[in-house]
Amino acid sequence: MSQDSPITPRATDYSQWYLDVISAAGLADYSPVKGAMVIRPHGYAMWEHMRDDLDRRFKDTGHVNAYFPLFIPVSFLSKEAEHVEGFAKECAVVTHHRLRAAKGGGVEPDPESKLEEPLVVRPTSETIIWHMYGQWIQSYRDLPILINQWANVVRWEMKTRLFLRTSEFLWQEGHTAHATSAEAMDEATKMLGVYTEFAREILALPVIPGVKSASERFAGALETFCIEAMMQNGWALQAGTSHFLGQNFAKAFDVTFQTQEGTREHVWATSWGVSTRLIGAVIMAHSDDTGLVLPPTIAPVQVVVTPIWKNDAEKADVMAFCEQVVAALKPTVRVKLDDRDMKPGAKYYEWERKGVPLRLEIGPRDVKQASVFAAARTGGKKEGMPLEGLAQAVRAKLDTIQGELYTRALANQQARTFRPETYAEMSAALDGGGFFLVPWHDDATAEQKIKDETRATIRCYPIDAQAEAQGRTCFYSGRPATHMAIFARAY
Amino acid sequence: MSQDSPITPRATDYSQWYLDVISAAGLADYSPVKGAMVIRPHGYAMWEHMRDDLDRRFKDTGHVNAYFPLFIPVSFLSKEAEHVEGFAKECAVVTHHRLRAAKGGGVEPDPESKLEEPLVVRPTSETIIWHMYGQWIQSYRDLPILINQWANVVRWEMKTRLFLRTSEFLWQEGHTAHATSAEAMDEATKMLGVYTEFAREILALPVIPGVKSASERFAGALETFCIEAMMQNGWALQAGTSHFLGQNFAKAFDVTFQTQEGTREHVWATSWGVSTRLIGAVIMAHSDDTGLVLPPTIAPVQVVVTPIWKNDAEKADVMAFCEQVVAALKPTVRVKLDDRDMKPGAKYYEWERKGVPLRLEIGPRDVKQASVFAAARTGGKKEGMPLEGLAQAVRAKLDTIQGELYTRALANQQARTFRPETYAEMSAALDGGGFFLVPWHDDATAEQKIKDETRATIRCYPIDAQAEAQGRTCFYSGRPATHMAIFARAY
Repeated sequence: MSQDSPITPRATDYSQWYLDVISAAGLADYSPVKGAMVIRPHGYAMWEHMRDDLDRRFKDTGHVNAYFPLFIPVSFLSKEAEHVEGFAKECAVVTHHRLRAAKGGGVEPDPESKLEEPLVVRPTSETIIWHMYGQWIQSYRDLPILINQWANVVRWEMKTRLFLRTSEFLWQEGHTAHATSAEAMDEATKMLGVYTEFAREILALPVIPGVKSASERFAGALETFCIEAMMQNGWALQAGTSHFLGQNFAKAFDVTFQTQEGTREHVWATSWGVSTRLIGAVIMAHSDDTGLVLPPTIAPVQVVVTPIWKNDAEKADVMAFCEQVVAALKPTVRVKLDDRDMKPGAKYYEWERKGVPLRLEIGPRDVKQASVFAAARTGGKKEGMPLEGLAQAVRAKLDTIQGELYTRALANQQARTFRPETYAEMSAALDGGGFFLVPWHDDATAEQKIKDETRATIRCYPIDAQAEAQGRTCFYSGRPATHMAIFARAY
Repeated sequence: MSQDSPITPRATDYSQWYLDVISAAGLADYSPVKGAMVIRPHGYAMWEHMRDDLDRRFKDTGHVNAYFPLFIPVSFLSKEAEHVEGFAKECAVVTHHRLRAAKGGGVEPDPESKLEEPLVVRPTSETIIWHMYGQWIQSYRDLPILINQWANVVRWEMKTRLFLRTSEFLWQEGHTAHATSAEAMDEATKMLGVYTEFAREILALPVIPGVKSASERFAGALETFCIEAMMQNGWALQAGTSHFLGQNFAKAFDVTFQTQEGTREHVWATSWGVSTRLIGAVIMAHSDDTGLVLPPTIAPVQVVVTPIWKNDAEKADVMAFCEQVVAALKPTVRVKLDDRDMKPGAKYYEWERKGVPLRLEIGPRDVKQASVFAAARTGGKKEGMPLEGLAQAVRAKLDTIQGELYTRALANQQARTFRPETYAEMSAALDGGGFFLVPWHDDATAEQKIKDETRATIRCYPIDAQAEAQGRTCFYSGRPATHMAIFARAY
């Protein structure tokens, strides 16, 4: 579809609606490389705001950034048995380092440039990083290492969806090294907390922090923590993960340290990450049939000012007033003046589809009253706001909109969280979407069977609900419950 | 060498000195992947400050960021004849998308996953971006497009040197599309100006803006502008380039637009970039035999506070005062309190090697006088600074240090810029380093001959010196001079 086409309503086709919203807002495009997307400026600016906020949170918790190579020797991947199992099937492999002219035109890989050892384009960086940590860590004095990396990664995907599942995506990956198991576990849960707060405060997503079942764990982790978000159709979306890796990578790369007592021990590890998939989560959680709806915190443009006039005399007055409004807002608000020579209605349509949280309409009558007419993207009655104290009123309104989005998403999540008594009850209800919170007896075979039968998976064992499992019986097997689990269909 | 080893003096071995400085400051490491480096936290933080400042300058001049795919179909590279010639010989080529278990252990590319068309890891992104611009540009209303991308790129290098020449590096690449030749040319020179100011103000590098000779142009450009910096050994380092691409890429990808008059024309283009090589330039331009010296603007730590005490009673007082000092500086200065239990001398040694511009020493006597003792990394007498007004005094001192670095680098550049009368005179002097500013008759054959004989290349035709060429004769051929040229040996 083109950027001007109408948006398919959610009720008609939720998947098409999602793609239409992205296109109408100019967030991303498919590229000529299978499964790889182009993140367009409006989408990338959302990512910049997320990145800046997260980066501040990482630094506030003692982390520093670094950069490790894109390429990983294939032999590194094999060193951790589960890790290679998890990633080998979806790797881009570099085998040559030169092109030559091909017969019949064009170019082809030069056979003489074949690499002795192929290189994998990083699907994640544990292996190359733990190789380097092996060189940097000698004693307890070198610990902890608290490094984060902002980078692109590649996982070859057959079925792709813009932002949610692409062959290349942008992310951050934290990789930390610790002297003790307890300290590594603390780090993994601390970062889960950072992600939870970030998702709630910045993305207006009421995520559920939890623990993954063994079969959903990261390849090489002893424990995977996650935050799960509910989309408007009731499906789940994993929005971030934090892994306790134990000593698996330290053992695979033989990374030991001298303890304070003089013994040598393997180092303990965590890794944690969120990606551009969060952009997809935000779109799906908040947008409507008109188009994109954005939390003000990450909106590239928070306020658009749209002048209205009928003739040149009016125009001069209105534009002068608009400039005053922009000057008042600029220091603390991301504001844009849309002075294009277009009908106001066409402008409203465009900015609504781009998800701008607040529109200030300014016509001759507003100029006379020294006020503006404010329309929130989330709806409700338009409000007059006087120029005096405007910045404060606008910021307060943006906070209100941010709060509304969170409240709506939370209401959706609560309304669609069910507690079925039986497996049959859940199976019958799954097509309608939702989170199904049930007492569960941990069993990978049963989990696989449920997935095969219903396409529902265990999204997590929600941390806050675990006490409930005590004394209850599994909704599937009738055995004593080991956990409370959330089942759902997921992106 | 290890991080504690002594640094080779510049006079003994300039190349080894450079590597020693990097190692002593913990800026980067070689990785197990040939030619690819690991940027360690202290080096990456320098990059973050450069990036943030540049990004602000780009946005202030109307640019927005976006992200394009890492992989480029090989057929794209062939579409612009000079471009493929320039980059095909140093490309990482992806040929498979899956690994399988190998006989005898390990993994290998799965032959069944061979790609129909190999992919190149971007050495630069003109081709993929102009493919996309072809989809986005229909009419003059879609122009200009002013997009920048922060990304990693790969150019397979046989001889590498940390930061200056690595197989993978980080950079930004601006790619703009315009309706007219004049507008594109304005953009290319505007960005040259942005780079020039950035290098001078932020990196304290007195770079020379100029134009490249035809043989040094970017592959696919009609004109390449550059900034050239002089290192302490008198060698040149290209610190940034801005290209006027004419309609070459628009023609290769058939990107046309409807003009206001209703005709169809090919779009005009520029591209421009700087990379992590700038970190190498900063190191080589400012550091000394003690180690790294950093302009305060990009120093990860601008001020280190080092407490000095002999007993616990002193320690309590000194530490309390240090906390006050840190609190006073924190809002406007990147300050670090080094409260480790180590001898002060060992701390000074470490922070000097890390290039921290200003050290504040605080002992019991300073506490009594409510002042600190400030030692600048650039040398000079230590100064007492009272706690009252400290932040202002420290910021002023950092500005002074920044100015000193620029002045020193400029003095070095001026002292080593020569105006030889003859080719023989230049040849004899080249081993001593320096810029050789000469009247020149443009001639690619002669240029190549000089390069073969002396390893000196034309770094640029400096913009400010071109008027001088009028009426003069070429120092090499005796023909009428077409330009003033700077010859030098270069990194």
